[in-house]
Amino acid sequence: MKVCVVGCGAVGSLFAASLAQLDDVEVWAYDLDEEHVAAIGESGLRLSGAAELVGRPRATSDAAELPPCDFGIVAVKSMHTAPAVGAVAHAFADGAVCSVQNGVGNEEAIAEHVERVIRGTTFPAGHVVGPGHVHWDVQGDTTIGPFEPRPASLVECERLADACTRAGLPTTALPDARGPQWRKVIFNAATNPIGALTRLSHGRVCERPDLRLLVSALADEGKAVAAAQGIELDSDPEELIDFAARKEVAYDHKASMLQDVEARRQTEIDYLNGGVVRFGREHGVATPLNQAVVALVKGLEASWAS
Amino acid sequence: MKVCVVGCGAVGSLFAASLAQLDDVEVWAYDLDEEHVAAIGESGLRLSGAAELVGRPRATSDAAELPPCDFGIVAVKSMHTAPAVGAVAHAFADGAVCSVQNGVGNEEAIAEHVERVIRGTTFPAGHVVGPGHVHWDVQGDTTIGPFEPRPASLVECERLADACTRAGLPTTALPDARGPQWRKVIFNAATNPIGALTRLSHGRVCERPDLRLLVSALADEGKAVAAAQGIELDSDPEELIDFAARKEVAYDHKASMLQDVEARRQTEIDYLNGGVVRFGREHGVATPLNQAVVALVKGLEASWAS
Repeated sequence: MKVCVVGCGAVGSLFAASLAQLDDVEVWAYDLDEEHVAAIGESGLRLSGAAELVGRPRATSDAAELPPCDFGIVAVKSMHTAPAVGAVAHAFADGAVCSVQNGVGNEEAIAEHVERVIRGTTFPAGHVVGPGHVHWDVQGDTTIGPFEPRPASLVECERLADACTRAGLPTTALPDARGPQWRKVIFNAATNPIGALTRLSHGRVCERPDLRLLVSALADEGKAVAAAQGIELDSDPEELIDFAARKEVAYDHKASMLQDVEARRQTEIDYLNGGVVRFGREHGVATPLNQAVVALVKGLEASWAS
Repeated sequence: MKVCVVGCGAVGSLFAASLAQLDDVEVWAYDLDEEHVAAIGESGLRLSGAAELVGRPRATSDAAELPPCDFGIVAVKSMHTAPAVGAVAHAFADGAVCSVQNGVGNEEAIAEHVERVIRGTTFPAGHVVGPGHVHWDVQGDTTIGPFEPRPASLVECERLADACTRAGLPTTALPDARGPQWRKVIFNAATNPIGALTRLSHGRVCERPDLRLLVSALADEGKAVAAAQGIELDSDPEELIDFAARKEVAYDHKASMLQDVEARRQTEIDYLNGGVVRFGREHGVATPLNQAVVALVKGLEASWAS
């Protein structure tokens, strides 16, 4: 079976290097960073941290080199989904493409370019150390399932999940994978932009009583939007917030959006709180706090341009 | 008549230097900045910009030096009201004390130390250039009136207003001075913290459609809190927002709260949005967006301590 990972940043690299361990899977790594691609070609893709291994995917920045693949795993930042998937769509004429990105709206963007789409949510996290080397910071589960408006079959989802699990990334295929996705979106939308706006670490955002009230109010709006879509969350996003407040998980972690703000990079706000607002509008649920947070983060992004 | 200006930063200095022009008013300037006080003692208090003049108030950092005064004019930052007025209260045993500070809650703090209090709102603005020298940036009106729970008489208010007006600071005394105060508070609370959180200038906050929606939603909460108190605004705070958006007034101005954030100084958030929230709670009006903004700015302040 052939799998192409589209976008080999931290999360994409975890999938590409892990899957490349399997004898029955041929892995392609597509990324526009030519230095990263060259390093992978020369010395392989190295993971350190939660696992120490070197995978040897076939890496390229040239979409024309990609063979027909059974599966795509999209791991680019959300705002790059459309151009990235547009460029590689030919490789998935008979394949199914799965998002393992943050936020909501990515599967919709993929579905504009390919026939069969898989909804996915992944909790493992890492950071790029340098060309060809990613540090694996946090282990975690992945859940995938058919993307309802343009679905891959559940059997296909199970086949991909089986390969990921055997490769060391525990993955479950479900008929309805929206619960874990919305749980993560609600959690991220409630906490990431608050870290970005206050410059506080994840745990400090969650433990301050005044900010925790805001975090929970943002989460409540997200839960209402999920409920209006008939989505049953697999567990309460507040649990993830409690973990951080109790210093059990990621207390000192700077949210990726805070990292973006510090580096003055465009954030994923449109796919986190922006997604909550958009789905809320479609389903008649008011989301004034998420809307406020979107405006504040986009205003902050605009200040860098001045 | 004797007047003591309590706190000779930018706004306090406009009052102290202007009033010191009058032959029938003896002006004392009380400030804890000894370098500033020494400069005023040596060369007088200089204003440049909207007016060019040198006033010669009697300046001191020693509250014990103050004689009994007919009037106090309090111009310290809101969070310093209680200690400053506490230190000088003896000078106003038979006098009336007027706030010309930002926000709401200052008169309440003054009333804990003196018998007769005047509610005040002033629009002139400036900035300190150096010891003994303040630049007058923006001219504007001042409105004062009896502070209802512990009022000075309207006659006293008129006497103070007359002196200020003759000194070049047009001032009106009204039986109910809450309208202008809440108009300014609502405007400041709707715009200042948005500039502080996004780092955008005043005009850019007001002209971006997404931020303008947030600004107006914050103003709407403030208007509801004013209405619940039976306060009739003298005009719609949205007019001040329109002026900034249309580049007529203060387009490039950095809100004082943004200046505080850039200098990592404590902000006046508790007396702006915090005041809207507090008065809202007392009068049964929900203010979720103002509450969110308070939490975000206080979180940002907390990040400097880490």
